[in-house]
Formats: sequence, C-alpha cells, structure tokens
Amino acid sequence: MASGTVCYACGTTYPSTERLRCDCGEPVWIEVDPSGFDWSAVRDGEQGVWRYADLLPVEPSTDVSAGAGDTPLIRAERLDEYAGCRLHVKDEGLNPTGSFKDRGSAVGVGAAIERGRELVGTVSHGNMAMSTAAMAAGRGLDCVVLVPERIPPGRLELIAQYEPTLLKVAGDYGRLYDETVSLDTEPAIEFVNSDAPLRVEGQKTVALELCEAFAPDVPDAIVLPVSSGGHASAVWKGLRELSAAGVVDDLPRLYLVQAAACDPVARAYREGAETVTPVDPDETVAFSISNASPPSGNRALAAVRDTGGAAVSVSEAAITEAQSILATEAGLCVEPASATTLAGVRTLTDEGELAADEDVVVVTTGTGFKELGTGSEPSDARTIDLGDLETELSAIVSNPSG
Amino acid sequence: MASGTVCYACGTTYPSTERLRCDCGEPVWIEVDPSGFDWSAVRDGEQGVWRYADLLPVEPSTDVSAGAGDTPLIRAERLDEYAGCRLHVKDEGLNPTGSFKDRGSAVGVGAAIERGRELVGTVSHGNMAMSTAAMAAGRGLDCVVLVPERIPPGRLELIAQYEPTLLKVAGDYGRLYDETVSLDTEPAIEFVNSDAPLRVEGQKTVALELCEAFAPDVPDAIVLPVSSGGHASAVWKGLRELSAAGVVDDLPRLYLVQAAACDPVARAYREGAETVTPVDPDETVAFSISNASPPSGNRALAAVRDTGGAAVSVSEAAITEAQSILATEAGLCVEPASATTLAGVRTLTDEGELAADEDVVVVTTGTGFKELGTGSEPSDARTIDLGDLETELSAIVSNPSG
Repeated sequence: MASGTVCYACGTTYPSTERLRCDCGEPVWIEVDPSGFDWSAVRDGEQGVWRYADLLPVEPSTDVSAGAGDTPLIRAERLDEYAGCRLHVKDEGLNPTGSFKDRGSAVGVGAAIERGRELVGTVSHGNMAMSTAAMAAGRGLDCVVLVPERIPPGRLELIAQYEPTLLKVAGDYGRLYDETVSLDTEPAIEFVNSDAPLRVEGQKTVALELCEAFAPDVPDAIVLPVSSGGHASAVWKGLRELSAAGVVDDLPRLYLVQAAACDPVARAYREGAETVTPVDPDETVAFSISNASPPSGNRALAAVRDTGGAAVSVSEAAITEAQSILATEAGLCVEPASATTLAGVRTLTDEGELAADEDVVVVTTGTGFKELGTGSEPSDARTIDLGDLETELSAIVSNPSG
Repeated sequence: MASGTVCYACGTTYPSTERLRCDCGEPVWIEVDPSGFDWSAVRDGEQGVWRYADLLPVEPSTDVSAGAGDTPLIRAERLDEYAGCRLHVKDEGLNPTGSFKDRGSAVGVGAAIERGRELVGTVSHGNMAMSTAAMAAGRGLDCVVLVPERIPPGRLELIAQYEPTLLKVAGDYGRLYDETVSLDTEPAIEFVNSDAPLRVEGQKTVALELCEAFAPDVPDAIVLPVSSGGHASAVWKGLRELSAAGVVDDLPRLYLVQAAACDPVARAYREGAETVTPVDPDETVAFSISNASPPSGNRALAAVRDTGGAAVSVSEAAITEAQSILATEAGLCVEPASATTLAGVRTLTDEGELAADEDVVVVTTGTGFKELGTGSEPSDARTIDLGDLETELSAIVSNPSG
C-alpha cells in the first residue's frame, strides 16, 4: 500500500519509503493509498493495530505486536462536570508495555524485519525505549536503545528487562536525535524514533479506532499530550486518510496539551507563529512530554490549525489534580503526561473552545503503574482489630460517604 | 439470566443469587442459563466483559468496567521450543488495573449497584484490592479494602490512589476471609472476594474469549496460576456453559500451577486427595498466589479432574527464569505469579502431559510493571561518547548478536 514518502508542508514526494526528512527540512510521512478503504475493510481476523493492515505499510503478525492497539474507550460520565463536556477516555496505557508507543513500535519493528535490518534502534529513556525493546524482543530482532548517561536506575530497569543493547551516551542528549537521523552505518540500522515515518504509521491507528468507535459520526474533539509532535502528526494523518477514503465527513478538532514548564508548541500557537521555537524548559511531573525542541512541532501546529483545534499549556498543579481525579472518579491510573489532557480540557471549556454537549476524547498515553509502588505516597489508612471488624464496618456502611 | 445459586459438588440449588456457600460447606456459583447462547449472541456493541452480557448476571456499562477483558491473545512462537508445545499467551496484564481481577470486579461492582448496596468490599493487599477500588471509583460506589497490618508501603500506595476506605486489620489475616463471608451488617456490604459468586461470573469471561478466539475449535489446554481457586473455578464454569450451550464439543484440559513454596492444590492433586489440606507456606516470589488455605481449592481440584488436566508446582528458580524468558523472547512483562504458568508448561511437557503439536494457552494474570522500576536490578549498560556514536553502532550492527 505504500508508494513513497511525501512532505505535508511543501508537498514534495519521494519514491523511497525509507526517507525521513524533506529537502525543506520538515519530516515526511509515508504515502498510503486510502481509496477504497471503509470500515468493512477492517480485518476482524487480526488483533490490535493489524486490524487496519490495509492502511499500513507492513504485514500483520501474531506476536506481542498483536497486543498493540485496540485499547478501551471509556465513557467517563462522572467527570463530565469537571471536564465541562461529554468526556471519553482512550486508555492507551493498556498496551503491552503500558503506553501508546507500542502501536508505532509494532509497525516499526515489523517494517525493520521486512526491510532486512539486523538492528532496530531508538533514542529514548522512557516509554518508547521499553516499547521498542519489547516489540523487538517479541520478533527476535536485535535492538539498541540510546539513553542519557544519567538515566534514573528505575527507568533503566524497566527497559533492561527486555535485554536490548543499552548504551548510555555521554554528551548533549538533545543532539542524539539528529545524529540518528543522519546516521550512516553499514548495514543500516532502523531507528524508529518518536516521529519516524514508520512510527507515525503505527500511531495513526488510534485515530482509526476512535473514528470506528464513533462511526458513522466522529467525536467532536480529540485531545492529546504533545511532546515531539509525532503522535499529533499521526492522528492527523489517520484522520486525513479516513477523510480521503470518504468514510468520515467532518474531522474532529485536534487539541494538544503541554506542561507549561515546557510548552514550545503551545507557545507557538498562542503567538500565532508558523513554526515552533525551542524553549528553555523547567522541570515538570510530565517528564514524558518534556521536549524543548520538538522535531515534528511545526507539523503538530499544522494539524491543530487544519482541524480547527488549539494548543494549550497547563500548570503542574492542574496536572496533578487531573491525575488524581482520573483515579478517584474514573478508576483510571495514568501517568502525569497523560493527565495533562484532562487539565487541558478544563482550560479549553473555560475558554469556550469545548461545549457541554460535545463528545471529547482524551487520549491517556501511558499507565501510571510504572511510576507508582515505591511507597513514597503516605496513606492515612488506620488500623483496626480483627475482633472489631463487624462494628467498624457497620459504622462505615451506615454512613458510607462520611 | 440468573436464577439462583447451585453447588458444583452436591448439586443443591438455592433460590438466592446472593448466597455464598452451600450447606455442605463448598462455594456455590450463580446459575446462568446458557441455552440458546452461541457466538452470534456476543454483543459487538459492547466492550470487554460486557460482550458476554447474555451469560452474566448484571447489565453492561460503559465506564472503566468496559476496559476489563478483551485482552490480547499472543502467539509466542519463539517460545515453542522452550515450552515444548505451540504456546499462546493470554495477556491479562492488559486490564485497567493490570490484572485479571478487573473482570470479576467489573461484574461484582456492577451487581453491587444493582443490588442497591452502599458499599463494596474486598480482602486483599494486591491486585484484587486495586481492582475492586478502581472499578468502584469508576462507578461512584464506596469501597472498603481490608489489608493486613504490615502491608508494604508500595503496595498500599497502589491501592490508595483510588481512595477507597483502607483499613489495616490487626490479627490473623487468614481468618479475615471467613469473617467477611459470615459478616452481618445493616445494610449489607457486598464483599467481592476471590471466589465470590459474582467475581467468578466476571472471571469466567476469559474462558469465553479464549474459546471464541479458537472457534470452532478450542485450545488443547489452558494453564492458570492458582491461588484461592476462584479463577480456576471460573474458567471451568465458563467452559461448562459453552459446552451446555453446544458451542464447543471437547473441553480444553485445565492445568493449574503453584509455587512449590505454597502448593496446597498441587499437593492434593499429587496425593490423589479429594480435598485440599492447608499447608505451612514458605516465602515465594509469586506472592500473589501464595494462599495456604484456598477457599475454592476443592473446586479447583474438581475442575482439573473433570477436564483431564493436572495441578503442578514449580521452583522459585523456574519461576524467575520463565519470567525473564517471557520478557526477552516474547516481549511480555508479567509478574512472577503469572510466570509460573510457563514454568508449569515446561514441567508438563517433560512429563508428557502436553505435546509439541498442541495449542496451549498460558494465562498471565498480572503485569510486572507494578513491581518494577525501583532500580534494584543492576544493568550492565556501558557509556559511550556522543562523538563515537557512529563507530560504536557500526560495530554493533556488524555483529548484531555478538
């Protein structure tokens, strides 16, 4: 289905599906022909992302990559008042390594094998590192993960369990991404970084699933955390393909959320800029999306403007509150980067961007489990005696919310 | 669909669906009429466990409970040689709180609401506690979790995020389960413990999914870790209902695995006993299934014998090895209790119980993420300089598995 690559910005096409960047400097994406696609083309015999194999540049598989995608869409009605709209949560934490990255890793690793690569690689010290390592392990492909020299040991442990080749890189970690884009080894290594065309293909499947779930309608808005801009680009591409195929009429508006501590895309949007300027970031609990110089930032901006959405930033306090509310009122354990979406929805409804009768989907990109369980959060649990059980419980049930 | 409860052992029926135990002392389960059920009755408009609402004693919902179930079935071909059979993995870690318990909690909390309860409760300090608290939070039902006085703070943190009423109980924690079975508060509290009839209803859906995935055939064998015996009972019940409905001919053989450190069910099986005798347990990495006096142990034994399976126990070393192999060769991060299944399969193929051409499904009941990320596992990652990146990577890709 893939015929080459194309630049979203200037329209230049390239015959190779392996190209990463346009001559204009912007990232390219893979050309897929969506004509003829409709919901009946979804492959019910496949699982996860592979259900959409007709729109992907790689053949399906039945290993752990089949566990990527097909995540639940939760109707979080109890949060409607807090959110100010009809809230739905796409729980991407329920992917094999606990994050949305598995969709892109599944496609990236599959394509690396089809291209005959000896090695797949990634530049990441978080979700993408784990995801790429796991998907490679499941397919028997060697994997190299480049992490910063001072990676926290807990995060290294999560990646190391899959036994990729782990290299700590001393020097400017921000430059590493660019280095891998222009890398020239023999044989070539398939680097499936955050906005690599192969990863974008996998990540777009979340948009396909959302539209399939709402078919024949679409949700009014989709809200994503934004880091490199690869995910936003992918969702936009998925929507464009469905539109080109004629299976959706209107596109949902795309809203992007960042932590105010590191918000180059939101800042560019606020300022009405055409391009994203790197920022000098502060610390944020949403470290997964702390990208001061997003390589697909301009494309993410274009996605927002094309669909009539917006990009906003939210405070640390708003992120932490949203994370807690998702647990206590919706039963969902998400990482802080994912909780930015609900915080962003609050901001957007306050601003009149989202209305009470609109169906809004927040995409919670990663589970909170990987960061919990250290016992650092105190609990006010009190101790009772076994002999007092019935008395104690009777008192509680007589006054349940007291 | 529910008409009362029935004892699997003596056949006594009771008109109330709320009964927990038979007069003979064994646990009862809820009578559901499966006649008329076939795969076309699966509700495609619902998600997760609610797809099987026709066989459940509660109405579907769209909150977080809709995220329970519908987990991926992975074909772990790269482990066939290690396992000695055609290995499939049902990845139950991809439930909303990271374990199989969410299926039972979804049904239990739903039924508690339909029964007009003010409070749902559970006796657990692990997966079931988190799961019940999360499902209750998503539905807005108050929840009480009874934990042992000396619960590790990390585990308490995982449960506390959903803000149930947490009570540490001083005294014999092993007696707590029995106390809650006979508890008499006004109004009543719905305790959805590990083998409660409502939980069994939810947990049986994993068997329905497995058979649907293999339809019109069934897998040759299903392998489960066993603790209270509630999960094994539920899988057995699901298979019996499909058989009664006439949608499956042969039943898969059920195999149960325990850590040798605490293996009352496997011991009873080995000894040819009709009933399970409590054991004096040792410590095990598979703490999630360390139940020295399983309340549904006799029923689990009956399930094994009825289906032509077996119960085995495995060593600590075998569990740890299997956990690592699942990560490095299948890309799956599971908790030690879940890894017992693969270790058990090795034992069973060695004993000739499972054959190389048989389709064997191991049910990995919980994610490993909740126990990882502490940084306690050392990594041998080496440090390179950014300037040496291309040289270093060229050396690796020229000798990828070196």
